[in-house]
Amino acid sequence: MMPVSLDTLNATDRQTFVTALDGVMEHAPWVAEAAYAVRPFVTLAALNQAMVEAVRKAGGERQRALIDGHPDLAGKAAREGMLTADSTAEQAGAGLDRLSEKEFATFHRLNDAYRKKFGMPFIVCVRRHGRESILREFERRLNNDASAEREAALGEIFRIAALRLDQRVSAPDRLRVHGHLSTHVLDTHGGHPAEGVAIELCEVAAGGKARTLKRAVTNADGRTDAPLFSGTPIPIATYELRFSISDYFARRGVAMSDPPFLGVVPIRFAVAEPEGRYHVPLSVTPWAYSTYRGS
Amino acid sequence: MMPVSLDTLNATDRQTFVTALDGVMEHAPWVAEAAYAVRPFVTLAALNQAMVEAVRKAGGERQRALIDGHPDLAGKAAREGMLTADSTAEQAGAGLDRLSEKEFATFHRLNDAYRKKFGMPFIVCVRRHGRESILREFERRLNNDASAEREAALGEIFRIAALRLDQRVSAPDRLRVHGHLSTHVLDTHGGHPAEGVAIELCEVAAGGKARTLKRAVTNADGRTDAPLFSGTPIPIATYELRFSISDYFARRGVAMSDPPFLGVVPIRFAVAEPEGRYHVPLSVTPWAYSTYRGS
Amino acid sequence: MMPVSLDTLNATDRQTFVTALDGVMEHAPWVAEAAYAVRPFVTLAALNQAMVEAVRKAGGERQRALIDGHPDLAGKAAREGMLTADSTAEQAGAGLDRLSEKEFATFHRLNDAYRKKFGMPFIVCVRRHGRESILREFERRLNNDASAEREAALGEIFRIAALRLDQRVSAPDRLRVHGHLSTHVLDTHGGHPAEGVAIELCEVAAGGKARTLKRAVTNADGRTDAPLFSGTPIPIATYELRFSISDYFARRGVAMSDPPFLGVVPIRFAVAEPEGRYHVPLSVTPWAYSTYRGS
Amino acid sequence: MMPVSLDTLNATDRQTFVTALDGVMEHAPWVAEAAYAVRPFVTLAALNQAMVEAVRKAGGERQRALIDGHPDLAGKAAREGMLTADSTAEQAGAGLDRLSEKEFATFHRLNDAYRKKFGMPFIVCVRRHGRESILREFERRLNNDASAEREAALGEIFRIAALRLDQRVSAPDRLRVHGHLSTHVLDTHGGHPAEGVAIELCEVAAGGKARTLKRAVTNADGRTDAPLFSGTPIPIATYELRFSISDYFARRGVAMSDPPFLGVVPIRFAVAEPEGRYHVPLSVTPWAYSTYRGS
Repeated sequence: MMPVSLDTLNATDRQTFVTALDGVMEHAPWVAEAAYAVRPFVTLAALNQAMVEAVRKAGGERQRALIDGHPDLAGKAAREGMLTADSTAEQAGAGLDRLSEKEFATFHRLNDAYRKKFGMPFIVCVRRHGRESILREFERRLNNDASAEREAALGEIFRIAALRLDQRVSAPDRLRVHGHLSTHVLDTHGGHPAEGVAIELCEVAAGGKARTLKRAVTNADGRTDAPLFSGTPIPIATYELRFSISDYFARRGVAMSDPPFLGVVPIRFAVAEPEGRYHVPLSVTPWAYSTYRGS
Repeated sequence: MMPVSLDTLNATDRQTFVTALDGVMEHAPWVAEAAYAVRPFVTLAALNQAMVEAVRKAGGERQRALIDGHPDLAGKAAREGMLTADSTAEQAGAGLDRLSEKEFATFHRLNDAYRKKFGMPFIVCVRRHGRESILREFERRLNNDASAEREAALGEIFRIAALRLDQRVSAPDRLRVHGHLSTHVLDTHGGHPAEGVAIELCEVAAGGKARTLKRAVTNADGRTDAPLFSGTPIPIATYELRFSISDYFARRGVAMSDPPFLGVVPIRFAVAEPEGRYHVPLSVTPWAYSTYRGS
Repeated sequence: MMPVSLDTLNATDRQTFVTALDGVMEHAPWVAEAAYAVRPFVTLAALNQAMVEAVRKAGGERQRALIDGHPDLAGKAAREGMLTADSTAEQAGAGLDRLSEKEFATFHRLNDAYRKKFGMPFIVCVRRHGRESILREFERRLNNDASAEREAALGEIFRIAALRLDQRVSAPDRLRVHGHLSTHVLDTHGGHPAEGVAIELCEVAAGGKARTLKRAVTNADGRTDAPLFSGTPIPIATYELRFSISDYFARRGVAMSDPPFLGVVPIRFAVAEPEGRYHVPLSVTPWAYSTYRGS
Repeated sequence: MMPVSLDTLNATDRQTFVTALDGVMEHAPWVAEAAYAVRPFVTLAALNQAMVEAVRKAGGERQRALIDGHPDLAGKAAREGMLTADSTAEQAGAGLDRLSEKEFATFHRLNDAYRKKFGMPFIVCVRRHGRESILREFERRLNNDASAEREAALGEIFRIAALRLDQRVSAPDRLRVHGHLSTHVLDTHGGHPAEGVAIELCEVAAGGKARTLKRAVTNADGRTDAPLFSGTPIPIATYELRFSISDYFARRGVAMSDPPFLGVVPIRFAVAEPEGRYHVPLSVTPWAYSTYRGS
């Protein structure tokens, strides 16, 4: 779906406006209607803010209905294909469509416990989390009291809405909903950027199992042509960058032991701020390396 | 078996001498007999050298018999429990007693190819190799010509004998048959050694699968009480040291992100010299680290 | 003097053209005249190239006259204020106008030796050198033979001319005559760029005596607002960056020893390529730091 | 003077005992007499403790006399050669015998201010301080109240006494009065200790002026044969270690720029604990280095 421009939205009639924003707030066209009343918007941030305020002012009953309109995570509706297109894509992006039976049972148990305690579905902005992080959130929020948890649910709804707005509407400004992950390989044996280093980015599960997310090769500046993450939140999770260092030095004819002391260098780190800037560089010789969180 | 002292060996009669060194050279008591003739030995190195020279001077036929006295690696004899005690322990130490059927088949194929080309068993000092390294050696040496390969076989026999001597005989000197692997964790956030860091040493197979070899915790000096390897060759293989860094900083009350940027720091490196000194330290803050091959 | 645009030069008459480029080649208006004949120029590089080729094709006699038109370095003419404005500024920039009597005597001796051996003045593009580097060049080139040295002199004249062109003429392109020096301070204790670190850039003489060239303070990104060098060659010399690290950590309330282990961190390095990119970052905690040549 | 053994001291008569410890507490033989009464001592620490307790129990008047028995720092008595041999050596060791007239005047002024406020001489264990550190202490302690300052004076007398005891008496144990400074150079370009690196240790004054304390060359293990400081407190001061890195890499034939990016690498650090262990290693390639406070 092509994004609609903010200018177009500002100029259009009520019906088109509401349709264009359909589903930004799940099953709640009244939020878009309330926003329509206060247009035009100079920025996307202003439109987003108007929708947030519409919910804030709507009172407990409508807020509750908004919350109740959300599906369970990895729930029966998801299994039976009855989610909105947005929810389907988001849950699939977080890997919730490929759970093992055991994991599905865990979600089922947590959903039940949550509904029993709070009488509403558990809502989380899944694009900001890896699978393990969602489960941690679930357990953590089960300890909240009802009022803190209703506030948490609204906060997550606003995050979901902001990400959907960011995809639906083009505007001069961008919402701060995206993270950034980049790397840089410096050859401190030769004193220059390391060109041609193969890099693999993996997501690492608690048991150590790794799933490859992306492969890239460093350019003449020792960087990848595109960031490893950008234009999306970085899911809260543990990652590993793997740098094929011995292949690089071998191509340059640098003397190494056999097998090389450093073959593939793994840098393992966790992302805690999905909207943060993470720069994870590597300075390396065949015998030593260092890394740090840069920005 | 308690080691016998070099002094005792020097003073004993021929029969006891030869029995004490039984099996240092597989199925070849004549080597110990030749050594007996040139005793006494001031050092273990001198006794070792005497046995090497006895083989060198023995001529092609006896050398060939010596070589032929060795069992196949992971061969039928091993499976049927028909090896000498030394060979059994050594092959088991290298994991050759727990091969999968597929790996067993690979060894079988290589043993056959080797016997077909060279007419003798493939001999390698297995205590100096991990399983993958043995296979690499096997493939590599299959490309040798017959004369280079006979020399290679004798070289391996001498390595095996030296390791057995080192275990059997106590002496003022030690043979240079042992490697040394140590680590050191420095907390560059606080400016002192990192005490209480849990460390895991794994052997990592080509596919990334890791097998834990040892666990340790750093002491007040940031070191492990005992070296990670000592008193034995370090098998040629890829290793990973895993440092539980966020647990350490959390105990010290250092502010970190949630989840911590650095949780478990993996340092992956390969050992190429089984008799080498490998010092692999870690300097670390919650946001940065570096390592190098020290000595 | 405001730069003239390349477009204007392309459109102007011969006399104005030659006047505008007066002195780009010292006392040699014929070079600009030759360039006029092949205008227009799409790029500044093309104009520069045309002037170089005019000299290359002019034959030995005119080349020799061009060389002879240059003043001695730190010579009598300089002392008596008889240089062209360009030469005066360039020699002053390299500190040749504030030599001690002893240094003046050294230049005098070298000028005499050079004239005696080669019968021409010693020419070097002084903007590319610190004082010590000029003397090293002088000694080194005294060992050349006459033909190599004439080529060296022309090469320096072309470098001088390119730098003068770069200042005189504005164009869509830039000649590659400028270096770039930058730094970046990363606080690996806190895991973010170090803001507010006072930095001093010094030139360090052989005896260790330092002359401050620039002071700056890092911004929120850990960088200086402007590069430490840009838009000019970086003179070949030894530099020291001094980072006031303990002041920075003290302001942030980080615990340190008294006096702090690291107070001012000096990074000493030499520039060998005046037109190079030098990035010299510092990663630092109160107890550790590292640096490297980046780009 | 040869040290006397603790055993001898334990066995000797009162007069010899007191004479042997003459001057450990300046002009106060009664302290040694009190210690004599409680001999024998199993350890030097016990003897030291006995002398401390004798002072503690002696009451305010005798303590005051003990304090008053000390000379001014860099005072008239020192200038006129009227100090005890111990005091003369200690003040000279701290460089107080080679003050400029201006520095002498500063000490004179501080001594006067101190005597005026507290009515006693300023006492500091000069072997634990560089010249600037003594002045800082002086200024700092001038702000104390009388009771805190009397306690400070006694504490310094105990430190002085412990250092004198350490030199006078040999025993199975050592008092904790010595610091330790060492370094280690690791060549992370080649992956081994850096042998043959010339090192200079300097004390650096506030203005940057450096005084060479020691020169050494690294051995095959990348260390200096002897520690840079040991068997003495390390004076509280700023130091600089200078490593001749380009000479080292040039001898090994490693390609570098001309001049080399890193020539002499200076590591500047301050010592805050004269009895501490300071290990200041350097990991270095021709293009990068790092250091940290180790132990």
